[in-house]
Amino acid sequence: MSLNYAKRMSNMKASEIREMLKLTQRPEVISFAGGLPAPELFPIDQMKKVAQKVLDENGSSALQYGTTEGFGPLREKIVERMAKVEADVSVDNILVTSGSQQGLDFVAKAFINPGDVIICESPTYLGAINAFKAYEPKFVEVDTDDDGMIMEDLEKALKENKNAKFIYAIPDFQNPSGKTWSVERRKRLVELANNYNVAIVEDNPYGELRFEGEKLPSVFHYDTEGRVIFLGTFSKIFSPGLRLGWIAAAPEVLNKFIMIKQGADLQSSTISQMEVAKFLEEYDIEKHIEKIKKVYKKRKDLMIKTMEEEFPEEVKYTNPEGGLFTWVVLPEHINARDLGKKALEKDVAFVPGGSFFPNGGNENTFRMNYSNMEDERIVEGVKRLGEVIREALSKENA
Amino acid sequence: MSLNYAKRMSNMKASEIREMLKLTQRPEVISFAGGLPAPELFPIDQMKKVAQKVLDENGSSALQYGTTEGFGPLREKIVERMAKVEADVSVDNILVTSGSQQGLDFVAKAFINPGDVIICESPTYLGAINAFKAYEPKFVEVDTDDDGMIMEDLEKALKENKNAKFIYAIPDFQNPSGKTWSVERRKRLVELANNYNVAIVEDNPYGELRFEGEKLPSVFHYDTEGRVIFLGTFSKIFSPGLRLGWIAAAPEVLNKFIMIKQGADLQSSTISQMEVAKFLEEYDIEKHIEKIKKVYKKRKDLMIKTMEEEFPEEVKYTNPEGGLFTWVVLPEHINARDLGKKALEKDVAFVPGGSFFPNGGNENTFRMNYSNMEDERIVEGVKRLGEVIREALSKENA
Repeated sequence: MSLNYAKRMSNMKASEIREMLKLTQRPEVISFAGGLPAPELFPIDQMKKVAQKVLDENGSSALQYGTTEGFGPLREKIVERMAKVEADVSVDNILVTSGSQQGLDFVAKAFINPGDVIICESPTYLGAINAFKAYEPKFVEVDTDDDGMIMEDLEKALKENKNAKFIYAIPDFQNPSGKTWSVERRKRLVELANNYNVAIVEDNPYGELRFEGEKLPSVFHYDTEGRVIFLGTFSKIFSPGLRLGWIAAAPEVLNKFIMIKQGADLQSSTISQMEVAKFLEEYDIEKHIEKIKKVYKKRKDLMIKTMEEEFPEEVKYTNPEGGLFTWVVLPEHINARDLGKKALEKDVAFVPGGSFFPNGGNENTFRMNYSNMEDERIVEGVKRLGEVIREALSKENA
Repeated sequence: MSLNYAKRMSNMKASEIREMLKLTQRPEVISFAGGLPAPELFPIDQMKKVAQKVLDENGSSALQYGTTEGFGPLREKIVERMAKVEADVSVDNILVTSGSQQGLDFVAKAFINPGDVIICESPTYLGAINAFKAYEPKFVEVDTDDDGMIMEDLEKALKENKNAKFIYAIPDFQNPSGKTWSVERRKRLVELANNYNVAIVEDNPYGELRFEGEKLPSVFHYDTEGRVIFLGTFSKIFSPGLRLGWIAAAPEVLNKFIMIKQGADLQSSTISQMEVAKFLEEYDIEKHIEKIKKVYKKRKDLMIKTMEEEFPEEVKYTNPEGGLFTWVVLPEHINARDLGKKALEKDVAFVPGGSFFPNGGNENTFRMNYSNMEDERIVEGVKRLGEVIREALSKENA
């Protein structure tokens, strides 16, 4: 028996990260593969108090259906978070989603006919590629340098692709590259989107996790025509297990997403929304974020330092000012998927970089996560990786 | 500024139920419009204990990412629930979703190319119509009688529509009609699906809420070739605010849904899944369901009795053996949308039936929910509705 699936299904494959996470569940594996927050920083005791309060004060609302747009007080709190990235919005700009991953699905659903073009950074977030692929787009990748997407290349892409619908960008501590866009590039991005009448999807899961350098306004801040769609999340500053994120957009654009949300799952969890709203009311999230940043900076510094010591000179990597990831570029002839298998034999895991390029290639790259491993294991894991890389290089040269 | 949306967006509109629920939030409104469970039956105290236990025992897992398929112990518990509808499955057949609404979105995503046919009952669930419309199907409606879909009409529809992808059915206490399929029809449905190589989507949110008559096996029970996709939910037997449901299907079919889930929102809330699993471990859900059924039966009986007393003879309605809804058919010339406006002036709300017919027509119908209103208000609301109907009829005859 073989059912007759939709054409889009032939585009889709299981996420390499999620599949890899299954392999790395053995406790002895030192995994730099996921994008998991440090669980020891989760505010468990506060959550216990918050959960009691919500059920005590509003138990029957918490367990009942709510509105599609989201729980009012949470949307108010999200307005405050948007202010942190200098985005001036009201609750009418906010739709609560089930993580920002749902926002990725929704933007493609709202804009993409089969064959339409999505312009993205090269490399770009694997989870976005997979979400978008369900809508059968073409991907046009634009190269980046240390200041983000290269604007001349972006303009060329816009000129050459009249059916481009949106530019997908992660301007802060990009996943996977760890790179951050300059202010100039942010402004120019908006100008170009205006000129070529496309939307901008600003994916910003890590923006508040800057542990070095100067804080920059979001792209949304520079929007002049209501064409920036901002995707936010509580996953990295609070807890991914609650699956709560948001879309911020102009009301007429947001309306489309509200309709999509109704069809997709009616609404996000009422009780989780009330719990997060209550947490934000009762506790100091800024202090909590400071705590996270301190730990991540320490781990990042340690990872970079160990890479400097342990990786051969030919290997390049980024030194991010925030977020969760650094990006490693090997000499061109080294295949990171093969390297990944060797590394896993030594109980070390990373995500091969090829999957972050929607049109393929660049198999000499990989992504490293530093947020989820303790200091000792970071050092030990990078050491082992150094060995594996040196072995591969020596074979290459043999 | 006007962004250039995907073609599918022109198909989509806001759910009439969700929009109506906004109008009916004034506390004085007697609303038969929603499909809301009775909130006074939610197990709030148990949930408080469960929430504490989950955070005490597994706090950092509860707040962390989990697997796309869902939390293992919850999937085990879902296997037990499937046994209640005589469906013999293992955890490998189960994907946890964010309510069964997400299952509706996923089945259309998996199967529907623009122009493909979905065969459904006439009328059928409004939320399914809206979810499906995003994938640009054609709907072929099949008439029903008191035993469910009329099989001769279904076979004709299958013969005439070679691009039919699935038959969508709610065999138990259908939303909106309250009708239940006979065993013969269930068996014949599977035979026909086998003969014409289409899938069956069995949407079963109310199956466990039978308060009268003989319990029947699910359609899934009669499946011989792994072509029934079963959508279940905790919304009606436990809490809709947690947004937890499931898809049960043959593993090779389920794999498609797991890929879709990865792109759509990665996974459903870890903490909610752990809480429901813990509740099912520690408390007697069967007893809880019995309590719900008792209340709903009482309310249903009261609504039907009051309708008998208050509604003119020309008005017909179903007398369901379970679930949440009864379905009212007015004389053909009476428009239920107009009637709805008059009723709202008297602070009574229902959902006009036209929206439950994907191809339109049947504007002389409406859906009544009895689960969410207390006895007195049921009597008062139906009385007022009776007045509004009699007024409309007398004008009609004038």
